[in-house]
Amino acid sequence: MAETAFLFIFLLIGLLTFLIEASQYISEKLTIPQVLGEILLGIVLGPTVLYLISFADPLDSIFYVSGIVSAGEMEFSTQILAFVSEMAGLLLLLEVGVEMDFDLIKKLGKNSASVAIGGIIVPLISGIIFAFMFTDVVKTTEYSILDTALFLGVALTATSIGISIRVLIDLDRFESRTTGILIGAAIIDDILALVLFSLALGFVEEEQAFGTGTIIDMGIILLKILLFVLIVLSVHYLIKRWVAEVLIKTKDTYKRLSFVMGLVFVFAWLAGSLALSPIIGAFVAGVLITQNSELKEMVEELIAPLSKWLIPFFFVSVGFRIDLKVVSSPEIMMLSFALAVVAILSKLIGAGLGALANGNTRSEALELGLEMSPRGEVILVIATAGLSIGVFSATLVAMIVMTVVITATAIPIALKTALTRIPTPEDKSEMLKL
Amino acid sequence: MAETAFLFIFLLIGLLTFLIEASQYISEKLTIPQVLGEILLGIVLGPTVLYLISFADPLDSIFYVSGIVSAGEMEFSTQILAFVSEMAGLLLLLEVGVEMDFDLIKKLGKNSASVAIGGIIVPLISGIIFAFMFTDVVKTTEYSILDTALFLGVALTATSIGISIRVLIDLDRFESRTTGILIGAAIIDDILALVLFSLALGFVEEEQAFGTGTIIDMGIILLKILLFVLIVLSVHYLIKRWVAEVLIKTKDTYKRLSFVMGLVFVFAWLAGSLALSPIIGAFVAGVLITQNSELKEMVEELIAPLSKWLIPFFFVSVGFRIDLKVVSSPEIMMLSFALAVVAILSKLIGAGLGALANGNTRSEALELGLEMSPRGEVILVIATAGLSIGVFSATLVAMIVMTVVITATAIPIALKTALTRIPTPEDKSEMLKL
Repeated sequence: MAETAFLFIFLLIGLLTFLIEASQYISEKLTIPQVLGEILLGIVLGPTVLYLISFADPLDSIFYVSGIVSAGEMEFSTQILAFVSEMAGLLLLLEVGVEMDFDLIKKLGKNSASVAIGGIIVPLISGIIFAFMFTDVVKTTEYSILDTALFLGVALTATSIGISIRVLIDLDRFESRTTGILIGAAIIDDILALVLFSLALGFVEEEQAFGTGTIIDMGIILLKILLFVLIVLSVHYLIKRWVAEVLIKTKDTYKRLSFVMGLVFVFAWLAGSLALSPIIGAFVAGVLITQNSELKEMVEELIAPLSKWLIPFFFVSVGFRIDLKVVSSPEIMMLSFALAVVAILSKLIGAGLGALANGNTRSEALELGLEMSPRGEVILVIATAGLSIGVFSATLVAMIVMTVVITATAIPIALKTALTRIPTPEDKSEMLKL
Repeated sequence: MAETAFLFIFLLIGLLTFLIEASQYISEKLTIPQVLGEILLGIVLGPTVLYLISFADPLDSIFYVSGIVSAGEMEFSTQILAFVSEMAGLLLLLEVGVEMDFDLIKKLGKNSASVAIGGIIVPLISGIIFAFMFTDVVKTTEYSILDTALFLGVALTATSIGISIRVLIDLDRFESRTTGILIGAAIIDDILALVLFSLALGFVEEEQAFGTGTIIDMGIILLKILLFVLIVLSVHYLIKRWVAEVLIKTKDTYKRLSFVMGLVFVFAWLAGSLALSPIIGAFVAGVLITQNSELKEMVEELIAPLSKWLIPFFFVSVGFRIDLKVVSSPEIMMLSFALAVVAILSKLIGAGLGALANGNTRSEALELGLEMSPRGEVILVIATAGLSIGVFSATLVAMIVMTVVITATAIPIALKTALTRIPTPEDKSEMLKL
């Protein structure tokens, strides 16, 4: 009976919503980042522990095995959850796009740029070297080791400063010159990481389609990306006028969400059709919609309730995609720690050197390097994309998840220790003068 | 490749969002109800005209037939659309529950109740008689004609006064005593129609499970509904305190949507598991959440953006479910008109007699009867549920859709004509004294 086919997915979404709220509450009490709590929740519910939901093997779920639901219901419900998680990924990148503050980038200029670029180059190279060093473990059947290495390098470039910001707020050191540099660097890092991700995605797809990568393939990718940029630029003015007209003049304020989501989905499709990732489209939609600073706040408020509800589904789903038991072998466990160390040190060195190159002190360089080290949302988005196209193995994604968990645990401790040795900046209003 | 499986559904959702906005814009210009525009849009995109999307036969879609998408993508995307439409149905009934004004019912008392009850009984009986008169056309293979007749009777009890309200506003006659009676009657009608729908759904499901309906079956349904009511009542105080605590005290206002939607999905599952319709659960969740009048406005504002975006998907999807070409045969076309006439006359007579019984004048009775006649959201929800469990044939659902279209077109004209003959009430503030 068609109507009951939806019952099980209703229950899943309802229960997950409350479990996520519970995990956020517990995270807050334990003063760990909420995103970490959500990832851990997913790991517990997924194949690693309870095996309630598995994106890879829906019918291995306890719900089906124990006869609670039929095979059809289980497969259907798992597909819907995968769709909700994909939509959550779009919302996440939409928010990143909407919150992108280009004025701040301009103001902080060189300092942020050099921290960001240093923090991109060293992790990129480190990731590629890591993959080639452990070819046996990370290689996949579908792609060449070069593809996997490139993707891993790109994945390691993504920073997630949310955790660092939280530590700074807790220590009452948020309003400082280094925080200004940090935020600017994180924005530039986000943009560059997404550009690199697009290039890498295009590259491996072309290679997949035409055999080994050639200069011609690289040309095709660049053409596709160019086409996307051209389309975006050509609709840019249209959208700017249209957005202003529709969003500001719509009498019924509640109807505005529909317009924003329509744009997000169309751009996600457009990006995906041009060998980019759909999330790049969501990001670009966010940037385009909020070019008008008057609109920025409006759109943020408009999408916030939906984002708060659905984005956690993305992080919970990370645990539904992988079986962390693969890292229980001593070898893979060691390698996971090695990858986490590479992730932290490469950012610390790269971003730190970038800071030093612009005349910052060594303690400022250490602070900025540590603050840029945590990995979170974006590396998981890239890892998930890598898993779904097959350029990453489940083992490698499990290692990346371990890296996120380790950095999210270790960096706050390291940062607190380091910062208590560095004297508090005397003039707290310094940042505002930047 | 897993990631591109989502691309086509992204495009579909994005395009539908904009097509819906366009249809709403056009409806406003043509001064037809938006819901009618949305239904017509779905009929054009569905199997009746363009055959872009068909819930019944996904692979008959032009997108698949012409080779634009693979079979897997087409089936997956159609399933996601069906899920979105189902979720839109939950949001629709959530809104009805949230907006239910029990204070108004108390104030208007007997007058509204007798209009509502008259307007329930006559259509219920008329629907049952209609089904038995045209057994050949309306019967299904899965259910007995008694089941189908009962369901059709219940479907005809649902009113949709949105169109009438719009006419009254346009004629500047909104603030009158009859409007007060009308709104109260519509609320009581909504509640009674949903109760009858629950009973009918339970009845046909039990009959399906145990053969012909018996007194024992009826007992089982009543027990299940009683169980649902008991569960709802027992969590009632818990939820009232919990809701107040969570919704009012949550510092992060945006997080509140997540809590509301969690409740809606859990209640939808609970209702569905007890042989009720999931939408009854969403309705009850709405009523429970907003018992506190302080919360009413907050929750309305919270769900409004999501509702405005997604609810139209429910009405568009009506056109994806049915092929209206079945009514192109002269016989079925005549029958559709007959059903529409039965729908209008039964409400006119039932609600009109109810009004007369309480001492209203004949012109007031005529006005109230006409105002209660349009069918809209709720009859489509019931028809969709009937189609999905198999108690309604696609032909009967097509006839019901025709009824919605005909009443939405004819009633405003009839009402305007009738009202211009009835003098405007002299004291416009009369309603406020009720």
